[in-house]
Amino acid sequence: MVEARDDNADAPIRLGMVGGGEGAFIGAVHRMAARLDGHYQLVAGALSADPDKARRSGAALGLDPARCYGDFVAMARAEAARKDGIEAVAIVTPNHMHAPVAHAFLEAGVHVICDKPLTTTLEDARRLAAAAERSGLVFCVTHNYTGYPMVRQARAMIAAGELGDIRVVQVEYPQDWLTTDLESTGQKQAAWRTDPARSGAGGCIGDIGTHAYNLADFVTGLELKELSADLTTFVPGRRVDDHVQIMLRYANGARGLLWASQVAPGNENNLKLRVYGTRGGLEWRQEEPNALCYTPFGEASRRLTRGSGGVGPAAARVTRIPGGHPEGYLEAFATIYAEAAAAIRAARAGRAPPPDVVYPGVGDGVKGVALIEAALRSSAANGQWMTLAR
Amino acid sequence: MVEARDDNADAPIRLGMVGGGEGAFIGAVHRMAARLDGHYQLVAGALSADPDKARRSGAALGLDPARCYGDFVAMARAEAARKDGIEAVAIVTPNHMHAPVAHAFLEAGVHVICDKPLTTTLEDARRLAAAAERSGLVFCVTHNYTGYPMVRQARAMIAAGELGDIRVVQVEYPQDWLTTDLESTGQKQAAWRTDPARSGAGGCIGDIGTHAYNLADFVTGLELKELSADLTTFVPGRRVDDHVQIMLRYANGARGLLWASQVAPGNENNLKLRVYGTRGGLEWRQEEPNALCYTPFGEASRRLTRGSGGVGPAAARVTRIPGGHPEGYLEAFATIYAEAAAAIRAARAGRAPPPDVVYPGVGDGVKGVALIEAALRSSAANGQWMTLAR
Amino acid sequence: MVEARDDNADAPIRLGMVGGGEGAFIGAVHRMAARLDGHYQLVAGALSADPDKARRSGAALGLDPARCYGDFVAMARAEAARKDGIEAVAIVTPNHMHAPVAHAFLEAGVHVICDKPLTTTLEDARRLAAAAERSGLVFCVTHNYTGYPMVRQARAMIAAGELGDIRVVQVEYPQDWLTTDLESTGQKQAAWRTDPARSGAGGCIGDIGTHAYNLADFVTGLELKELSADLTTFVPGRRVDDHVQIMLRYANGARGLLWASQVAPGNENNLKLRVYGTRGGLEWRQEEPNALCYTPFGEASRRLTRGSGGVGPAAARVTRIPGGHPEGYLEAFATIYAEAAAAIRAARAGRAPPPDVVYPGVGDGVKGVALIEAALRSSAANGQWMTLAR
Amino acid sequence: MVEARDDNADAPIRLGMVGGGEGAFIGAVHRMAARLDGHYQLVAGALSADPDKARRSGAALGLDPARCYGDFVAMARAEAARKDGIEAVAIVTPNHMHAPVAHAFLEAGVHVICDKPLTTTLEDARRLAAAAERSGLVFCVTHNYTGYPMVRQARAMIAAGELGDIRVVQVEYPQDWLTTDLESTGQKQAAWRTDPARSGAGGCIGDIGTHAYNLADFVTGLELKELSADLTTFVPGRRVDDHVQIMLRYANGARGLLWASQVAPGNENNLKLRVYGTRGGLEWRQEEPNALCYTPFGEASRRLTRGSGGVGPAAARVTRIPGGHPEGYLEAFATIYAEAAAAIRAARAGRAPPPDVVYPGVGDGVKGVALIEAALRSSAANGQWMTLAR
Repeated sequence: MVEARDDNADAPIRLGMVGGGEGAFIGAVHRMAARLDGHYQLVAGALSADPDKARRSGAALGLDPARCYGDFVAMARAEAARKDGIEAVAIVTPNHMHAPVAHAFLEAGVHVICDKPLTTTLEDARRLAAAAERSGLVFCVTHNYTGYPMVRQARAMIAAGELGDIRVVQVEYPQDWLTTDLESTGQKQAAWRTDPARSGAGGCIGDIGTHAYNLADFVTGLELKELSADLTTFVPGRRVDDHVQIMLRYANGARGLLWASQVAPGNENNLKLRVYGTRGGLEWRQEEPNALCYTPFGEASRRLTRGSGGVGPAAARVTRIPGGHPEGYLEAFATIYAEAAAAIRAARAGRAPPPDVVYPGVGDGVKGVALIEAALRSSAANGQWMTLAR
Repeated sequence: MVEARDDNADAPIRLGMVGGGEGAFIGAVHRMAARLDGHYQLVAGALSADPDKARRSGAALGLDPARCYGDFVAMARAEAARKDGIEAVAIVTPNHMHAPVAHAFLEAGVHVICDKPLTTTLEDARRLAAAAERSGLVFCVTHNYTGYPMVRQARAMIAAGELGDIRVVQVEYPQDWLTTDLESTGQKQAAWRTDPARSGAGGCIGDIGTHAYNLADFVTGLELKELSADLTTFVPGRRVDDHVQIMLRYANGARGLLWASQVAPGNENNLKLRVYGTRGGLEWRQEEPNALCYTPFGEASRRLTRGSGGVGPAAARVTRIPGGHPEGYLEAFATIYAEAAAAIRAARAGRAPPPDVVYPGVGDGVKGVALIEAALRSSAANGQWMTLAR
Repeated sequence: MVEARDDNADAPIRLGMVGGGEGAFIGAVHRMAARLDGHYQLVAGALSADPDKARRSGAALGLDPARCYGDFVAMARAEAARKDGIEAVAIVTPNHMHAPVAHAFLEAGVHVICDKPLTTTLEDARRLAAAAERSGLVFCVTHNYTGYPMVRQARAMIAAGELGDIRVVQVEYPQDWLTTDLESTGQKQAAWRTDPARSGAGGCIGDIGTHAYNLADFVTGLELKELSADLTTFVPGRRVDDHVQIMLRYANGARGLLWASQVAPGNENNLKLRVYGTRGGLEWRQEEPNALCYTPFGEASRRLTRGSGGVGPAAARVTRIPGGHPEGYLEAFATIYAEAAAAIRAARAGRAPPPDVVYPGVGDGVKGVALIEAALRSSAANGQWMTLAR
Repeated sequence: MVEARDDNADAPIRLGMVGGGEGAFIGAVHRMAARLDGHYQLVAGALSADPDKARRSGAALGLDPARCYGDFVAMARAEAARKDGIEAVAIVTPNHMHAPVAHAFLEAGVHVICDKPLTTTLEDARRLAAAAERSGLVFCVTHNYTGYPMVRQARAMIAAGELGDIRVVQVEYPQDWLTTDLESTGQKQAAWRTDPARSGAGGCIGDIGTHAYNLADFVTGLELKELSADLTTFVPGRRVDDHVQIMLRYANGARGLLWASQVAPGNENNLKLRVYGTRGGLEWRQEEPNALCYTPFGEASRRLTRGSGGVGPAAARVTRIPGGHPEGYLEAFATIYAEAAAAIRAARAGRAPPPDVVYPGVGDGVKGVALIEAALRSSAANGQWMTLAR
């Protein structure tokens, strides 16, 4: 169970945040995730590029005004100089700021928890990964769906061979919030996510396609060999893709489809993964995350539920409450934070991270950016099969 | 309501059957479909290519031994010569026999109800279509899923513009029955369906891919512009594809994915269609066919149910019993038979068929064969975009 | 599989029908059920008490005008006198006519298939049962939900002890069609079903409460010891109950609840049964009848599906088509007809009925009427515990 | 949205906890709920009646050893004497300790957040309620299911008349964890919950029956007039009931059933509420809490989802993240804590609590105990109708 996993007697990790001020969405999510298990204490922030807003946002969160910074450069410098400076920083800005902010804090010796996609270009991603590796610091990318217990269960079952050899991967992430040109109404989330200068060249592919890819990658462990993509922009005037369909070929011969859409009415965050092998199948859906459908070939299908006896240690480790009491998105997000905390605490103590800790790292972040790049490349070439650049 | 739709006082249509003897699957389905609404009476058959089996099968069905034929040529000739000869024939043989049998009965002036895919080659399909058109006879191809009331409802809603302009089509038909090499065990269905000499060059694409395509085609009415296909054979030794993934581009700019598989454990006949437009979406699944999920953009999703007040005349016409009492596969199949009956009776009376009668015709059959051909062509060309030959 | 079960070469059973003329609901259901498997041929009818309507209704069904009778007495007499007279009669009138019609045909030596509830009073029910037993004829009461394959599967699993000792029975049948005073609009179904002179003293308890009770009785085989009922009439002016709640105590110590309602908006025919024992549970719902949820204690829950390998012979016997192709209400109804046909054919041949044939008999009909009587009695006594009269 | 609702700049509320040491379940839940929104800081505890365990448990949570007390009396006294003493206490002990602990802290001027059922006897409950009212302090009883956003939505819709006059209430809470005599294995939760000395005279009725009742009460606002109960103990040797069935009559004429069971295999925490009125129905299930099924009479049923546009302010107020990202049990629990925090902060500032704050109070706790008492009384009288004592 998560709460008892770490030694909470150990003082909480001092956390800073860049981005996430008034009106932001994901900043509040990161804060709740950081609070849930008590592993972190938020003590500093550069919450907005607008200094007034940064100050107001910090005050609303009870931060010491002296530690509400107007920009991340000042914050990195000042916190590095404090004896009680932050140990970790959460980066929750629009995508184009991930790289510069992350570099600044890595240079300041601060562990990084960064939202996805890692960067807006593959070159930036590689450079950042190299810096992260040189630093020896913890670098966590919040591909948060990997934090769901039943996703861990799925991964463990596949790793244990319960599905046999994997043949088919079906992953999809439809949404509907960009069915109309919401960006023209001034809605903040829509505005930056459809602006290539802030989100990168990918729209839907970057925002949710990467999540879908990461989920399939995490659960199956298969190596993607090549892809054929058809990206579309349906809403007139939109500057990035809002619909993604990709055919996948894996190195072991498996085949797959990745579908992501932001223009599919009736879908909120309907991320779903289905995997089929020679011996059975699995199905998991983010909107009902506490169950995993397991279909052993030739037998009745089974509904495995989080917290129940039929579920193994990989899921149990990241489970907080008994079966039938649903855990949700914030708990999965908090699990990523808890796993990063375990690694940070191990670093603090000069120990290696616990062996069973799993959190998406900078390498996963690079893979996500490589997916965006390859999908854009393939789509521009009318669906020609492309390999992911390394 | 179906039962009262036609004038049952009119004598039942005299029906013959080719194929469908002992051990067959689809023949029994056709017979139940023909019986349910009382429009047909089975009076003759060439139920097997094996004369003994043909006789035994006919006897078990109560046929007059004199009308249990050893081959379809004899049957067509003899029935044409009888005053009380059959008016229609149901062709339920393996695929490679569809064309010769259909030609024989068309030449004998008999209406045809033929299973799908229409033929094993596109050339045959076109020739048969031409013959059917020349004959002036009713030619029905049993793309039976179009008989479901809620599929009719979906079609009517899209035609009425309730979804706005269609942008996205997602259709899938996963099964699991060919996960292993069942054909090597002597199982009759598996044997002929994986034998190119009897099923045609397509395996999964012909057997169920055509159903998925037909369903999307029927419901959306969109013109398919081109496709990029990746067909796979997973089971060692299998001679046809058992897994299909296709990217679709429609003439109006819509995009889509078609996935069909016979190696996806846990899926029985999990045909599902999702369509999204500028104003809303629809979702329908064959295994729970009495409901249609309608998701108007920005509103709560709605569950429309067969037989309820919220459902329009296109569905009501083909509904037999009130809502909450499920209708199934046989009822939908029977609806195709009932619609063909209406057309045959109109022909009998020298009238035009009733204007609201909808049944898949020979043109739909040709489209299905064209899909197979284009998918095979594209897959052989490593997924190159191909148009459907006409 | 149903189609092949009987020797169809044997001539169809000559069937008559009383009731079920124009505008009726259940008559058409009986006719489709009789046709589906080819065991019956409808040859005579007294389809309406109104002679003109009787004639018109018969003509629409293609009956010989000479065998369209104006009343059931004439029909019983005339058919008994014919050499090719009916062998069986389907009684599909309002409830108050079941007894007189059934008596008339039993006396004429005709097998009876009668809708439920058997009669409008318990005294009538017992008298009819005695007559049926004396006659030696087949007497089938169409508690049709027992015809669903997965209901058969549930019964077989409980009989085999897979649930251990049964502790809890939860059965419910909510509808919504009488939420308003539909009877005052002239709707025919509502009019007679809420008229004590035609439906009997029970409203909801008789119409659907008996189905719920029969289903629990059929599946569990438990003996009901006593009940405490609270019947309510919610719609002003209605003359019978439209809402039923009953606490159940079984002879083995099991407990249960029976809920039936005709005023629960959003429920069409939402019959559901849940049974729990010391070793596991089962759940089945009529609106998704092709699956049975099986929950062995301490293990993952399983979804058993009709037509799949995990399902036993009791279900397989009454299955027509493979898994994933849904069967529905008409198929289950047809199974009752098919089982009655097997018994009638055995009688025709002077044989005992096949040992595995299961159809609800006159004894089940009496039990249903006893339930109505006891529930009315208990409710009138403010919920006092009552035993079912025998 | 919850996070922004209160002024977080205001210092967190200093919280103590009684109970909830090593091996406890609900204590950890309370702590996560208290942490999620940042309104509380846990600073003191009497976490176990075993002083060593109390110390160890406190250390694991990072508490100051000086504030890890061996008993609640000492804790109340010492904390009251500190300038930085606790402002609120969470009582998470077995039921029999709720009353003495709550009295001690009320006397010490500390706000109380107490688990349910409030007390083990109705007399104790009334005395405690009187003390709470005299104190003027906040007294929150964690009937946590009322914290779910879609439960708030249901309540608001009924209050607004969207269902018309309520006729039918169906509430059920089946579990399976006590299907066997788990208490004899030493499992801590089972041991105290089946021990009348610690849980009170009610077993299942107290542990989960009260939750079911409270949920129906909260959502419908109907006054319960009388009940007829049948409580059963199925597991041999068990000292309290493990199965509850109750018929309900409401003051407005509505009828209902309450079913709770701890011996229903396959049910984890399957709390479900259905309410039907003259104009429509609602259905909500705790295991899929982010949706509410709304069935307006005569229209298609609708699926309202948390965080979507179709949901009103009562739900939106207690929503943290957008639709499609599921919230769960901890979030709902945290909402109760957040609402209590708003009241406590208002008290701190000498203000009245915000008008829209809804949390279950001591009066709700008394109602729950009255339900237990009346159900036991009715069941002992063979189901005689009983009113709830006041």
